[in-house]
Amino acid sequence: METHFIAGEWISGQGHDVDSLSPYNSEVIWQGHSASKGQVELAVSSARHAFLSWKKYSFEQREQIVFRFAELVKENAELIAETVAKETGKPLWETRTEAAAMAGKIALSIKSYHERTGTKHKQVAGNDVTLQHRPLGVLAVFGPYNFPVHLPNGHIVPALLAGNTVVFKPSDLTPLCGELAVKLWHEAGLPNGVINLVQGGKDTGIALADSAQIDGLLFTGSANTGHILHRQFAGQPEKMLALEMGGNNPLIVGEDFGELDAAVHTVVQSAFISAGQRCTCARRLYVARGDAGDKLIAKLVKVTSQLKMDQPFAKQQPFMGTLISRTAAEQIVAAKQSLIDLGGKPLLDGKLLDDAFVEPSILDVTDIKALPDEEYFGPLLLIVRYNDFAEAIELANNTKYGLSAGLISIDDTQWELFSDEIRAGIVNRNRPITGASGDAPFGGPGASGNLRPSAFYAADYCAYPMASIAGDAPIMPETLSPGIQFD
Amino acid sequence: METHFIAGEWISGQGHDVDSLSPYNSEVIWQGHSASKGQVELAVSSARHAFLSWKKYSFEQREQIVFRFAELVKENAELIAETVAKETGKPLWETRTEAAAMAGKIALSIKSYHERTGTKHKQVAGNDVTLQHRPLGVLAVFGPYNFPVHLPNGHIVPALLAGNTVVFKPSDLTPLCGELAVKLWHEAGLPNGVINLVQGGKDTGIALADSAQIDGLLFTGSANTGHILHRQFAGQPEKMLALEMGGNNPLIVGEDFGELDAAVHTVVQSAFISAGQRCTCARRLYVARGDAGDKLIAKLVKVTSQLKMDQPFAKQQPFMGTLISRTAAEQIVAAKQSLIDLGGKPLLDGKLLDDAFVEPSILDVTDIKALPDEEYFGPLLLIVRYNDFAEAIELANNTKYGLSAGLISIDDTQWELFSDEIRAGIVNRNRPITGASGDAPFGGPGASGNLRPSAFYAADYCAYPMASIAGDAPIMPETLSPGIQFD
Repeated sequence: METHFIAGEWISGQGHDVDSLSPYNSEVIWQGHSASKGQVELAVSSARHAFLSWKKYSFEQREQIVFRFAELVKENAELIAETVAKETGKPLWETRTEAAAMAGKIALSIKSYHERTGTKHKQVAGNDVTLQHRPLGVLAVFGPYNFPVHLPNGHIVPALLAGNTVVFKPSDLTPLCGELAVKLWHEAGLPNGVINLVQGGKDTGIALADSAQIDGLLFTGSANTGHILHRQFAGQPEKMLALEMGGNNPLIVGEDFGELDAAVHTVVQSAFISAGQRCTCARRLYVARGDAGDKLIAKLVKVTSQLKMDQPFAKQQPFMGTLISRTAAEQIVAAKQSLIDLGGKPLLDGKLLDDAFVEPSILDVTDIKALPDEEYFGPLLLIVRYNDFAEAIELANNTKYGLSAGLISIDDTQWELFSDEIRAGIVNRNRPITGASGDAPFGGPGASGNLRPSAFYAADYCAYPMASIAGDAPIMPETLSPGIQFD
Repeated sequence: METHFIAGEWISGQGHDVDSLSPYNSEVIWQGHSASKGQVELAVSSARHAFLSWKKYSFEQREQIVFRFAELVKENAELIAETVAKETGKPLWETRTEAAAMAGKIALSIKSYHERTGTKHKQVAGNDVTLQHRPLGVLAVFGPYNFPVHLPNGHIVPALLAGNTVVFKPSDLTPLCGELAVKLWHEAGLPNGVINLVQGGKDTGIALADSAQIDGLLFTGSANTGHILHRQFAGQPEKMLALEMGGNNPLIVGEDFGELDAAVHTVVQSAFISAGQRCTCARRLYVARGDAGDKLIAKLVKVTSQLKMDQPFAKQQPFMGTLISRTAAEQIVAAKQSLIDLGGKPLLDGKLLDDAFVEPSILDVTDIKALPDEEYFGPLLLIVRYNDFAEAIELANNTKYGLSAGLISIDDTQWELFSDEIRAGIVNRNRPITGASGDAPFGGPGASGNLRPSAFYAADYCAYPMASIAGDAPIMPETLSPGIQFD
């Protein structure tokens, strides 16, 4: 199987077997061999070679190809949605939104390029003063499995617009999605070598990150892998490393949370959308002690227990599909059990079903003294009851991460306090915390990244500024500095 | 001697002795003890405590204090210039420009804050969509000795404006300059603990960089120390590290370089201003083979040999003063000798004089096959003769650094080619490459930094973005996602 795209050619991998399974029926939908270390180097060399000409394209020329890609994404939106659904187990209604986001990224990236980077000219005292932005060179893009087309696309589009070339390694759980995206780039007329695709897992990733010929690495994935990459890049300040990692995101429900069903809906969308496989998903829910909170929790448990779960193409579309793999499903169930062992009380005890299906769970973990600060990447919500709002904020901030956070409250004073005190990059009120504005930067402090926010600020890490002062000829100033003489 | 400023108190150091000498007469002008590890932790704790209230100041409140600081800098401009001259050996006419740059930084930093970070509001479909920028917390600022007030100031001002608190460690070669800057901040009314000063060398620096309680470190200094810091921060992606390091900056003189004296003046200002102690100084001069080049070199050698060198306060002001220390002067002479041993031909063989005075040197290193890619931080210019322009650009780019680069040529085609091909952050034509626009970002690719450009882009690394979507109350959407039911 020719599954790697290097210098405009599809070639077979020389590494170990990689299979991709539909997580809802365990059917093999893609087979290949990972890229060997030599093949990774070949891909990087191809990108380096292509860089020499690609960087000389005008922005408008690059933009034309990217526009053509956007058209192809729109034309193939249903194919993209189906491919993502097949490979991730997410329901089709949801993967359609991912295909749309992928197309929408183009206009946003162009706007961001001009606002954050781009070119500025002025005349100062007879000099041309210019600020331009230059591509870094060859950028490795490591994609995640949860949004296997949209998230790497959020790195690839700004990287290409700025004039970089790319070696893309999708997650080894979603090689088919990665392949589809690269096919569309090729079809859009991207010159050979400007985007290269290598498939594989950890070994391939290490080889790519280790390559002396890359100028940067743009990563979306787990905090664990991100930290390994950060150590791998130690002592190489000249290489751009942009890490988008996870979160252990808190959602506080105030005493006055407004209409019960609306509040519950906000929690459900925050915690269980994409079966909890969004890095912005609420993991910890803080609910005031007392009747109002009790009622909210009761309704939340009821609504969550009724969430429809099914395979992605089911006629009657489910709210959620599977996790990405059987292993991921087993891990989330094991995590739940370990929290129960620590003293967590199951309010909804979701079961592991066939394949990668796992029902949502809700635990009351108020009594766990030292709640582990982990990202449980699945449909598992932990509830902590609090005594007063200040305590809730303190508990919410008690995490090494800082991606998203939310407040459900109709009390403006609480919102003011919350948005002043909470330490996170995406901070919503009365709206799901899984919703982020496409024209805003995306990322947060703490272990959620390395302070290279993506989305609208992705342009920043795809280029370096070049400032120039230029005159037509050297000049002799009217007054010389002291102590110089020409005769 | 109470030389450390912690939580608004001047205290004595508990570490080893630190003396600061005037490099032009070796008189001791400052004495103290370095901060011990415990004192460094105290300074960081003080900054952390102060952060809790400082971050709640409105931007306008912080701005008021910073404005007052700017006034004080202006009022004390002559004292600042004299102090810098006394401690660095740079001539007074030059240190006056540093004092002016320090005051000028305020308006530029405020503009940058609003353009690069700041706050944006809009209404989208009944939601408040807000982008704010939040301070990181406690930032350590490591200052260099060459611009001991201006360069740390370029980190301190944007850090404070964004709401961070600061622990400032000046170079141990310029403690007096650091002390003066902090005294002005205190006088400007900065609350206790918002800026803290610790003095010391390597040990103090390691302790500060190691502190678990800092949120970032903003460094200006040598590539060697910068790389050590980069390794020290490995595995801590959550800590902001901004490195401004050195360069091995090329300056190409084209065949048609315009008026001879003007061209020579541009080279002299690029190579020997500040006795070659600017990170943007030209280190490698590429001159075409042939008569025109020969003439340029002859005049360059003549003018350089006539550059007046004297102590900073000399009535008849010199072009250059000393290097920062006797050690630095000895090192530059040793570096020259090692290049002569490799085959470099001295065209001007500057001598080591008393104290830290060293005369400028020019070597023709065309015959050195493997020219070391080092930053020689002093008045030492290396000339390479080239055959054609393409070769010159290739040689110019043959460095791991990428800070500044320049072209002296009246040929527009050469400038186009040069500015397309050269890999540097500051790229000037027919102007000294030591001149950078204050409202432009400052920094370059390669080993010159970690792609966190400073100056106009310093705001970027002093804050993280916080994006919010907010509504007054949670809402039940008109259409629910598939698979949710409330009854």
